[in-house]
Amino acid sequence: MAKYRQIREDLRALIESGEYGPRALLPSLTDLTARYRVARNTATQALKELEQEGLIQSEGGRGWIVRPRPRPRRHGIDRYSRSTWAAGKAILIAETASQGMVARQQIRELAEVEAPEVVAVRLGIPVGTTVWVRRRTTFIEDRAHQLADSYYPLDLVEGTAIRQVDTGPGGGFARLEESGERLDEINEELAARMPTSREAIDLSLPPGTPVVELIRTTYDISGRAVEVMWSIIAGDMSSFSYRFKIPD
Amino acid sequence: MAKYRQIREDLRALIESGEYGPRALLPSLTDLTARYRVARNTATQALKELEQEGLIQSEGGRGWIVRPRPRPRRHGIDRYSRSTWAAGKAILIAETASQGMVARQQIRELAEVEAPEVVAVRLGIPVGTTVWVRRRTTFIEDRAHQLADSYYPLDLVEGTAIRQVDTGPGGGFARLEESGERLDEINEELAARMPTSREAIDLSLPPGTPVVELIRTTYDISGRAVEVMWSIIAGDMSSFSYRFKIPD
Repeated sequence: MAKYRQIREDLRALIESGEYGPRALLPSLTDLTARYRVARNTATQALKELEQEGLIQSEGGRGWIVRPRPRPRRHGIDRYSRSTWAAGKAILIAETASQGMVARQQIRELAEVEAPEVVAVRLGIPVGTTVWVRRRTTFIEDRAHQLADSYYPLDLVEGTAIRQVDTGPGGGFARLEESGERLDEINEELAARMPTSREAIDLSLPPGTPVVELIRTTYDISGRAVEVMWSIIAGDMSSFSYRFKIPD
Repeated sequence: MAKYRQIREDLRALIESGEYGPRALLPSLTDLTARYRVARNTATQALKELEQEGLIQSEGGRGWIVRPRPRPRRHGIDRYSRSTWAAGKAILIAETASQGMVARQQIRELAEVEAPEVVAVRLGIPVGTTVWVRRRTTFIEDRAHQLADSYYPLDLVEGTAIRQVDTGPGGGFARLEESGERLDEINEELAARMPTSREAIDLSLPPGTPVVELIRTTYDISGRAVEVMWSIIAGDMSSFSYRFKIPD
């Protein structure tokens, strides 16, 4: 085995076994070069690879530490309960508060845009149809957590606060129901992948952190798709849970 | 910007824009060193980082190519339909076949073990209680796809084919119902992370590929948890979808 691989695997074993816990300081470069009789570049290569896998992080002059894992936000089906948003509470704020976390969101863009394919297919409209988009970044405990872009058919948002920065009490769901759309079902599609460079920057992701791509489609009682939220979520800050009846 | 970063970002932009599509051959090391006036080690570092992010892969002597993405298996709620397994069909085989894929599974271990915490909490038993485990690896189109470990309370598997290599028609769900457990609900918990070194080996994961950790708990009609499946799934081969009514 190449020497750098040996160093990498030894350190990995110490971390995965828990012998080096969260925020533990790893042996210094000087220690590693002496113990394994290698050049500094060789030891650095081992550390860089562990960083890419999300196991360690550099603390500048202090050296390298085991990366602490934030406590994840749990995304449950219950966050969508009508009793929350119909009572004027924001879904994001209410769910995270129930987990002892403080969340906020920041609008990145409000605009009419051409529906991309992912959205058009789910809204049941031709690609390129003009739709309304709300792009926002959500933060939990002041770390960026989610890039959430919600797309709406134009006719549903005309004259509503969904076109405003502040959608008002209960948010978009409450405004859609006020306009006469009785909301009924949600479909969530999830997949995990590594972020693009842009997503890694926008979410301030440490190296070696995957994202969850979540596409949420909301349907009204007639079966019409009234909103598609296309969301990129920091993988190390999130878990998802779905409880359902076994279908017939 | 360091030269290797420049090379990395230029190549990344070409891949993310789609200009270099799946399996496209990247410029050779000789090309890169000439174009950017750098040492071979510098160009290699850029390529290695893109490999760690899952964007490219080495083809040995041929050079580096854009990593092709396999078509993912879609995990829908419908795969659990009683009409599938109660009719003697295997859930895995039936779902993947409906997507035009061939799947199989291989048993890694059948044993009595002490319930780990993740399992015990969900089965509602003390940590360390003896339970029955079926560890298996599933393959789709002959690539390892999932490490699925199913844990059962001992009393539920006594004298059933769940203790055998072949659980018989309809698998574990069918056997549990035969024993008098009317199955009712499933809870699925998901999170994305980078694999441990062991998981990467067992799933033959290319570098830069996250896994989805799926913990599935199955409940009978009385609310008793009758099985916990703890599963590690190749992120680049999987998507998940959940459709549900908006709760009251």
